[in-house]
Amino acid sequence: MPLLTLLTDFGLRDHFVGVMKGVIAGIAPKTQVIDISHEVEPYQVAQARFLLSQSWPYFPKRTVHVCIVDPGVGSERRGLLVEAEGHRFVGPDNGLFSDLLGRKGAKVRHLSNTKLWLKNISQTFHGRDVFAPIGAHLSAGVIPAKVGPLVSDALRQTTSAPVRTGRRFWQGEIVHIDRFGNLITNLPAEEFSSMQPKGMALKVGLLVVTKVLTSYAAARDQEPFLITGSSGNLEVAVNQESAAKMLGVGLGAPVELEIW
Amino acid sequence: MPLLTLLTDFGLRDHFVGVMKGVIAGIAPKTQVIDISHEVEPYQVAQARFLLSQSWPYFPKRTVHVCIVDPGVGSERRGLLVEAEGHRFVGPDNGLFSDLLGRKGAKVRHLSNTKLWLKNISQTFHGRDVFAPIGAHLSAGVIPAKVGPLVSDALRQTTSAPVRTGRRFWQGEIVHIDRFGNLITNLPAEEFSSMQPKGMALKVGLLVVTKVLTSYAAARDQEPFLITGSSGNLEVAVNQESAAKMLGVGLGAPVELEIW
Amino acid sequence: MPLLTLLTDFGLRDHFVGVMKGVIAGIAPKTQVIDISHEVEPYQVAQARFLLSQSWPYFPKRTVHVCIVDPGVGSERRGLLVEAEGHRFVGPDNGLFSDLLGRKGAKVRHLSNTKLWLKNISQTFHGRDVFAPIGAHLSAGVIPAKVGPLVSDALRQTTSAPVRTGRRFWQGEIVHIDRFGNLITNLPAEEFSSMQPKGMALKVGLLVVTKVLTSYAAARDQEPFLITGSSGNLEVAVNQESAAKMLGVGLGAPVELEIW
Repeated sequence: MPLLTLLTDFGLRDHFVGVMKGVIAGIAPKTQVIDISHEVEPYQVAQARFLLSQSWPYFPKRTVHVCIVDPGVGSERRGLLVEAEGHRFVGPDNGLFSDLLGRKGAKVRHLSNTKLWLKNISQTFHGRDVFAPIGAHLSAGVIPAKVGPLVSDALRQTTSAPVRTGRRFWQGEIVHIDRFGNLITNLPAEEFSSMQPKGMALKVGLLVVTKVLTSYAAARDQEPFLITGSSGNLEVAVNQESAAKMLGVGLGAPVELEIW
Repeated sequence: MPLLTLLTDFGLRDHFVGVMKGVIAGIAPKTQVIDISHEVEPYQVAQARFLLSQSWPYFPKRTVHVCIVDPGVGSERRGLLVEAEGHRFVGPDNGLFSDLLGRKGAKVRHLSNTKLWLKNISQTFHGRDVFAPIGAHLSAGVIPAKVGPLVSDALRQTTSAPVRTGRRFWQGEIVHIDRFGNLITNLPAEEFSSMQPKGMALKVGLLVVTKVLTSYAAARDQEPFLITGSSGNLEVAVNQESAAKMLGVGLGAPVELEIW
Repeated sequence: MPLLTLLTDFGLRDHFVGVMKGVIAGIAPKTQVIDISHEVEPYQVAQARFLLSQSWPYFPKRTVHVCIVDPGVGSERRGLLVEAEGHRFVGPDNGLFSDLLGRKGAKVRHLSNTKLWLKNISQTFHGRDVFAPIGAHLSAGVIPAKVGPLVSDALRQTTSAPVRTGRRFWQGEIVHIDRFGNLITNLPAEEFSSMQPKGMALKVGLLVVTKVLTSYAAARDQEPFLITGSSGNLEVAVNQESAAKMLGVGLGAPVELEIW
């Protein structure tokens, strides 16, 4: 069965997600729809980018990923189809797909073929009226060239890339706080693991965290520690507690890493 | 694949929804189940009606919609099957289906054939024991006449219809607050758009909102504005903020509209 | 279609559940995945046991149930496959499956065949790397013996079994609080219904509840009452209100029952 994933900030209390699935089922009845998350913080494009980066590599090739965090809905912002790494990504042109645009062979198209949209287009819900139908048509076999022409000027968002400020220093930020309150940075462990550091210190909020563990279960007390999470990025965690609450730190908070 | 939707106030923290899907999978293994929402405020039939009205038209004909907001579970209230507009609706007889009962050709049946229910019927969870099995049997091809006899006295709830109090005046209420905090009224824009109003004023909470925009993105400040939402109804919104929080207004709050 | 259920404490705001479904879809494309709940309170194994016990009997035989509440992830704790009652259960060896281990014919295997796992195993997300792939392989037809050898020393958690302290007395606890705020005890009504009690009294928090009803709708005021819920266990409920809030009682709170 063809696969289509959904990643939005629509939440689950409204009918938004269910309606998109109804539209998809009408166009592509054989497609299996999988929710990545609908609890992206409203309008937080950077957080959606992180969740997307953690998800798509675990899906089979040819999956269509419909991603909608869209503060510009109803404005002149374009809709895009990005083809990269054998996957297809559909959503607004607002930086959501920044990490994919530079991939080898990536192609970007402007969703301009209104024949593939719903007939009545609202100014407020392009998830239902544009992105879900486009995703469904692609999933049902419509070829990418049909959705619109190739473009080369898709928006790139660079804010959430870490900055190396010295041989042993990086500046970054908290790009996600997971359900358990773990603070996930944008610092990939592979960036410094080849340097085989003996120790590291992460400034976050009012704390400097220097304890490093390899599993949550290895913690023996309630002291915050550093761990390479399932994302491959450095996380701040506390044993069976919320690091976010304990440190009073939120999404987007800056962090500074020193290794030695 | 046959489609079946679920709309309930069961929430997602409990096993309720998953168990209904297990029951459905046992009876109708080929049916695809789609969640509309399970976060209807507990017992808020009017809110469920709104979400249902926004959802079912986007599904293919023959879809079975199982809707359960059921404060009267375990009492003498009946279960119903409503056939309308080529769709089928299953749920308690408490006004949930008011908007469908008057449709041309609508048929209503009393779910009285206990052979189609689970064998053991609890007094507290008819979603699992009655409505899910009925929906699944219909989805699997059981003909409507099998579920029970036609009835003509289904409950109608009229509270959430707007009232025109003058040529240029309407009274209504907030029927839904979406994830973004937008306040959705029960006032359909088509009711007054043919009058081509030059301006309008909506009293809501302690405010009178007169600014009208056609997209969320057109807002340039944090002032509340009126917009025709994806529902076709008038909404009160604030740019990237929660209008509900800013205005301190909740579900069911009265509104008054004047146009000129 | 083969069925696979998911029960976790991962929540729905993160990508965790979506990624597991991607992994499953890659291995077992024909499998239908059903969510039981992902809102188990973090690390609350006893609550997950309750939700599991309420769910699996409503699924067809041969369903694979992947259950992950796993405070010990990354430690030496084993992964298990439990075969019982014609169903298959996959998850960590931490007591989650206590209720199933003693069933007639139950078999328990240690998940040691790493060939069935993902290639790269994180120390923090065995749901994605171990349990989802194992569940998917079983669902796709891999025979149980392939996952690892039989073991007989799986952990049993006994804390949430009620204790009969006299002919007419039981001690128990609140094992779940549902969406409506109903307090669900671990006291099965069948334990004392054969004694045909004339009355009963449940001590919970600061109250003694003696009113007994057979449906929520039978309540005529806001007084807390006892009811046999859809679980078959004794619950404390309040008409259209949250008993948990009204009584100020949380998960794990002790209760004492007297019947006469």
